[in-house]
Amino acid sequence: LLLPTKNVRQLQPSYIREILAAATRPEVISLAGGLPAENCFPMALMAKAIESLPSKPELFQYGSTQGYAPLIDHLEDVFAAPNQSALVCNGSQQALDLIARSFLAPGDQIVMETPGYLGAIQIFSLAQAQILPLNQSGTGPDIERLEAIFKENNIKLFYAVPDFHNPTGVVWSLEKRKQVAKLCEQYDVRLIEDVPYREIRFAGNQQPMVSLFCSEHSIVLRSFSKTISPGMRLGIAVADKNIIDTMMKVKQATDLHTNLPMQAVLLDVLLHPDYLSHLEKIRLEYKKRYHSLSNAITQNEIGEASFSPVEGGMFLWLKINGGNATDIAERALAKNLAVVPGEVFYLSDAARDCYLRLNFSHTAPELFFEAMRRLIESIDP
Amino acid sequence: LLLPTKNVRQLQPSYIREILAAATRPEVISLAGGLPAENCFPMALMAKAIESLPSKPELFQYGSTQGYAPLIDHLEDVFAAPNQSALVCNGSQQALDLIARSFLAPGDQIVMETPGYLGAIQIFSLAQAQILPLNQSGTGPDIERLEAIFKENNIKLFYAVPDFHNPTGVVWSLEKRKQVAKLCEQYDVRLIEDVPYREIRFAGNQQPMVSLFCSEHSIVLRSFSKTISPGMRLGIAVADKNIIDTMMKVKQATDLHTNLPMQAVLLDVLLHPDYLSHLEKIRLEYKKRYHSLSNAITQNEIGEASFSPVEGGMFLWLKINGGNATDIAERALAKNLAVVPGEVFYLSDAARDCYLRLNFSHTAPELFFEAMRRLIESIDP
Repeated sequence: LLLPTKNVRQLQPSYIREILAAATRPEVISLAGGLPAENCFPMALMAKAIESLPSKPELFQYGSTQGYAPLIDHLEDVFAAPNQSALVCNGSQQALDLIARSFLAPGDQIVMETPGYLGAIQIFSLAQAQILPLNQSGTGPDIERLEAIFKENNIKLFYAVPDFHNPTGVVWSLEKRKQVAKLCEQYDVRLIEDVPYREIRFAGNQQPMVSLFCSEHSIVLRSFSKTISPGMRLGIAVADKNIIDTMMKVKQATDLHTNLPMQAVLLDVLLHPDYLSHLEKIRLEYKKRYHSLSNAITQNEIGEASFSPVEGGMFLWLKINGGNATDIAERALAKNLAVVPGEVFYLSDAARDCYLRLNFSHTAPELFFEAMRRLIESIDP
Repeated sequence: LLLPTKNVRQLQPSYIREILAAATRPEVISLAGGLPAENCFPMALMAKAIESLPSKPELFQYGSTQGYAPLIDHLEDVFAAPNQSALVCNGSQQALDLIARSFLAPGDQIVMETPGYLGAIQIFSLAQAQILPLNQSGTGPDIERLEAIFKENNIKLFYAVPDFHNPTGVVWSLEKRKQVAKLCEQYDVRLIEDVPYREIRFAGNQQPMVSLFCSEHSIVLRSFSKTISPGMRLGIAVADKNIIDTMMKVKQATDLHTNLPMQAVLLDVLLHPDYLSHLEKIRLEYKKRYHSLSNAITQNEIGEASFSPVEGGMFLWLKINGGNATDIAERALAKNLAVVPGEVFYLSDAARDCYLRLNFSHTAPELFFEAMRRLIESIDP
């Protein structure tokens, strides 16, 4: 009998993807996923590049592991420091997996925010790394605690989402960015700065990247899933050449390279004269949807609920005073509303406040009022 | 300092891909790669599906981990037994990686043919498996030796390429297929039957799949890289549902799913009324190229060289009487001919005969004569 290895047996299937599967009935309003709005996909900007593919058989041949050369040139021009390289991956999720496979042996220690991105928890668990959780406030991580963790342990990597954090929506303050960068340099910890939502800022001012302050101690993961298309599965890692070379060696062994026709289409979109106005369109659309959701929460007078306003991203982190998030999510699903209970974003079962993650990017704005009506009934059954 | 893990440090970059990088100068004739002929890509069969993509934003959204549902339905109809499922991967290379990650702990024992597919050696090395090599003759593996290995060890997987083996071109006889299947059942070993070249038979008669005789003890890997397009990075695994479910859990964590637009294009090609004649066109073209290469070997009177004729696939395994394959390959490259020395397909440095792997699928037929002229000069410098 062929049995899964221990780390695979322990790997939990993503609860969110399970909910999503349950939430495909048309009568369900789903605020559960992290899906971008399909009416924001840049179909018009892609059309020309897509339609030219049948006349470019060379794009259907084996390609280089690093990525489609003209795309790599462009990405490195825009994103890489002189001694850095870029690597195209099957979404930034694969980039994270390649980092873990390249640099983490079982038992190696890494830090991530708690609550934090479920996909990162899965990757690090699969690599059998020891994940040390770091609390954060509305301005970013607990710096004192971070220094204590760095000091008392042998931390290899700090995985963080400093812009519109998933699930909390938090954006790190400039001061915390500088402090984290300094600590990473001081304790020789490599920062993985994951910025899938960074371009989706619809209020407030953009902060500099954390890695700007610790370039040589950073690996930046960028995704095109939120701004262009998730189905194309394209993301990149940017880091020192020797880091990228190692990841590339592993990628070559594991899938040779990322699909080439979609890389050519991506480059065309990034170079398209309307690309910036496309990004602006997403921001306006998501701003509208976020305000519809937050207004719906207020209008429904969900007295037990509160949240910190977000300035971008895709998620609102709703705190419920009293109650059990998993119970509420289950009752909501019975009322045809899908939400994600906060529990799934935590590393342990320790006692914590009751939170729900509400996605606002994928639902038509006119549905939020009805969604929050169903939520109230699920909080007070 | 962030250092690669031990198994990654030990991973050798693919020598073949290194040669390929060196062999891009236009004056080089390359018989080194495993590239299909670009003039055989089914561009006309793909055109309609590709051109319809801009009007299908739903194909650019996140998709299911298992694969594009209509494609999965079709693949399971054609390839899966009633209790089996299919999983779409980024090439069958990723399918193999998912098997290793799902089921192999460090030190677990597997068997593979020697010489054997380099990409499999890399995957199993990365998983820190113990690879037990199995010799094969012109009709397939050494059955007595295989039984002894199964009896004396605790083998989890037997990885094999029974049709037009890479690098040797060997096709297993019907008898050996049945014998291997029986041994896998008897010793409860799971057979990974990798069949990327199976459709490219241009002489002789198709043999039944080995897994036909041990369906419950098999995992079949199919590639669309040789028959449709490698740049799309699409391959599949077919096996018992519980095996596929485990692989799917790992795939979900590592890259969520395979790119969706290309899966829709693949389905359209597979269902296209001209698909079978497209396959026939590839067979005729490769038959022509193979004969050009074998004639060029004969016409150049390479007296030191001999080879067993192949009935399909992409490679000819040339034996050189006396000489060192790596030296010959190096001298050949200096004369603008790229070939792969047999050494790279072996697991250890043990003494062995001198072989070169010659690819015939990617080179224009009129170049083989000149290629073999350069080879003679490299054998007798």
